[in-house]
Amino acid sequence: MLDLFFHPRSVAIIGASHTPGKIGYVILENFVKGEFAGEVYPVNPNTAPILDQKVYPSVRDVPGPIDLAVIAIPAPAVPPVLRECGRVGVKAVIIISGGFGEIGEKEREDEVRAICKKYKMRALGPNCMGIFDTIGHVDTLFLPRYRMRRPKKGAISFVTQSGAFGLATIDWAAMWNIGIGKFISFGNKVDVNEIDCLRYLADDVNTRCIALYVEGIEQGREFLKVAKEVTKRKPIVCLKGGVTRAGTQAVLSHTGSLAGSPEIYSAAFKQAGIIEARGVEELFDMARALAYQPLPRGDRLAIITNGGGFGVMATDSAIRYDMRMAQLARSTKKKIKRSLSPHALVGNPVDLTGDATVDMYRHVLDEVAQDRGVDGLIVICLMQVVTMTSKIISVVDEVNEKYDKPITVCMFGSDYTDLHMKMLEAEGVPTYPTPYRAVRAMAALVRYSEWLRDVS
Amino acid sequence: MLDLFFHPRSVAIIGASHTPGKIGYVILENFVKGEFAGEVYPVNPNTAPILDQKVYPSVRDVPGPIDLAVIAIPAPAVPPVLRECGRVGVKAVIIISGGFGEIGEKEREDEVRAICKKYKMRALGPNCMGIFDTIGHVDTLFLPRYRMRRPKKGAISFVTQSGAFGLATIDWAAMWNIGIGKFISFGNKVDVNEIDCLRYLADDVNTRCIALYVEGIEQGREFLKVAKEVTKRKPIVCLKGGVTRAGTQAVLSHTGSLAGSPEIYSAAFKQAGIIEARGVEELFDMARALAYQPLPRGDRLAIITNGGGFGVMATDSAIRYDMRMAQLARSTKKKIKRSLSPHALVGNPVDLTGDATVDMYRHVLDEVAQDRGVDGLIVICLMQVVTMTSKIISVVDEVNEKYDKPITVCMFGSDYTDLHMKMLEAEGVPTYPTPYRAVRAMAALVRYSEWLRDVS
Repeated sequence: MLDLFFHPRSVAIIGASHTPGKIGYVILENFVKGEFAGEVYPVNPNTAPILDQKVYPSVRDVPGPIDLAVIAIPAPAVPPVLRECGRVGVKAVIIISGGFGEIGEKEREDEVRAICKKYKMRALGPNCMGIFDTIGHVDTLFLPRYRMRRPKKGAISFVTQSGAFGLATIDWAAMWNIGIGKFISFGNKVDVNEIDCLRYLADDVNTRCIALYVEGIEQGREFLKVAKEVTKRKPIVCLKGGVTRAGTQAVLSHTGSLAGSPEIYSAAFKQAGIIEARGVEELFDMARALAYQPLPRGDRLAIITNGGGFGVMATDSAIRYDMRMAQLARSTKKKIKRSLSPHALVGNPVDLTGDATVDMYRHVLDEVAQDRGVDGLIVICLMQVVTMTSKIISVVDEVNEKYDKPITVCMFGSDYTDLHMKMLEAEGVPTYPTPYRAVRAMAALVRYSEWLRDVS
Repeated sequence: MLDLFFHPRSVAIIGASHTPGKIGYVILENFVKGEFAGEVYPVNPNTAPILDQKVYPSVRDVPGPIDLAVIAIPAPAVPPVLRECGRVGVKAVIIISGGFGEIGEKEREDEVRAICKKYKMRALGPNCMGIFDTIGHVDTLFLPRYRMRRPKKGAISFVTQSGAFGLATIDWAAMWNIGIGKFISFGNKVDVNEIDCLRYLADDVNTRCIALYVEGIEQGREFLKVAKEVTKRKPIVCLKGGVTRAGTQAVLSHTGSLAGSPEIYSAAFKQAGIIEARGVEELFDMARALAYQPLPRGDRLAIITNGGGFGVMATDSAIRYDMRMAQLARSTKKKIKRSLSPHALVGNPVDLTGDATVDMYRHVLDEVAQDRGVDGLIVICLMQVVTMTSKIISVVDEVNEKYDKPITVCMFGSDYTDLHMKMLEAEGVPTYPTPYRAVRAMAALVRYSEWLRDVS
């Protein structure tokens, strides 16, 4: 059980720093100034107060029990401090410090593993970013907020082997209004690994989709067995780093862990119901749809657009992703036609043309969503034309609430457009800059829906 | 010759409107308030002044010769007005108005074609956005600036069949500091088509790369013949809408023009040296690199990163795009090692780790760029870590100026990161949010370089 990492009653920050901006300062600041509800014990041989908090020279001097210790000190000092933690009964540790297996210091890493085992302490890291949890408010991200924003609470939990990739992604997610549940960076995994995270998040009621970045997976069979159980309950999207031979070599020098071959991973992921992402944007493009949109009953898409070219591109993408274009019912076409200009040809894509108003979208989306031949909607809104207003947000949101069919949206432009993208994202309607990405996210929903049918 | 469209000595705006925000108002405003240097004649039966300009009831009443007429009036009124234009000797017309072939009004479109032919007027459109030129300052984009930004002057010229796609892209380019030379939206192409545009832009000294979006190409042979000549002189990147059967059908209903099969287009593009893009972002990702970066002599890449995971992903992408990872010379490794931490392993990717400073980047980039075994550099900078500062911009820029090797950059994050992406873009160093996209852009440079070797 990893619960102590997310809901500790007390936390010791070992290596709490007096210098603003330093790792041990920022982490302490997160706990003290954030919404964390438990006890916080800064630990540093220099006991001058930090952020008005009493500082303890060592964990032995801390007056109460310690559920979780966050360790941010130079690598050589980690083993002795860990032993102290073990002796005073610390139950879980997050070892932020680098300088272990990733730079060839295998022995030091083995020592850490042995100590944690001896004292039955669960350990995350070393060489990791630790945890950022929007529920229990544990936040060990050591970068100041002006450099790295923190995302709002959401239904995607994100597990990553690479800390740097994790922090960049968290920062990006914050800007785009993408909500995060739990973020876990497990680094060199002396103890907690991707399998433990999957198991834990499977039971986490706030997590509706698990996004995963892994480089090497040592216990392949166990990983797939667990993943196959988890994907029956909630979707896993996985980006695997090191799928080519050269990429694998890069992983070896970077983490010291073993990486597998690309084909083996792809095939195995598929068999376990894991949806494979090929890139950073793809990972979250798909996770957003899977976390917030209902699953489609089939693969028949309707595309509604105010730009003909974007409709064409979305159609191409739909076919490339093995989905079908819906045949709209005659009655739907008839009803739609009423709200369009007399010359308009009603097909699929439904091209509302550049004159489209929000009312036209309202009417057409409502009719198309009711059509029994339509399983999912791709809504393309170019916000540059003056007939489009911010009311489009509530129109799309209402259709999304009213009907049990997935919607993904495409908007492409600059500031004015981005503003509306973020507004839709805040409503749980995933919004993408290109037709391709909106369609690819819909394809993930279709694939996952098919997987659930296959295993049920 | 299309020069009259870009450097008219006089322009008549037919359908100049008295109502702010309306198409005919915004276009007039562009000419009057912008940097256009020629004569401007607003034309409207209601001759009350607009924007303090004298308004003429018809082109017959305009006192001087008219090089270019911009027509933004309802479709049924277009043919008679065109005849008037022909009679008074207008040399070129841009027909913004829709309501022709794209809604099935073939006869009206044929009439327009016949009139232009009779009077030897060159015509762009109908059903188009017209022109936006950062040199001659012709700007017929009819959307207000708060909805649609205008990009700065640059070396990419962009030709598009779809107006809506064009305007969204121009807006997006403006936000990302991507410079544009000439933008041409040719719509239903009663006269000027993609072939004319290629010919014209081939001779345009300010255009270093042509980005093209096409749906149907009627004169396929001629197009490829011309393209093959142009690509010997400058790169063409092309996104083809309607490559699947369903996509082709969408094109048919959208433009009324005939579309070909996907395989035929792909193969033909390759033979003509055209670089094919599969999506909106890809089109400009590649065009930016081709317009601003030198061509590599080979396909051996060096990847420099402060995030291990991103280095791994970039390596995977390099291999997927059929490029090779450079073997750094022993002397290069030795020199690099001096500036890294004692434990660091120098490989490729060169992983500077999360502690990397700008000085480390300066030193390492300089050494790697000098290595004869390196043809191109992928530079990954995660700006979230506090050791990275804005100085990285000038460091990358200096290496880019000093050595004749292409560089593409990857930065991923929120506001702070985006700011630096735009700064690099302004220096002509194309910058992308993901390793995949930075590598894909480099692959376009490698492909084009190979093409030039093959045809020379």
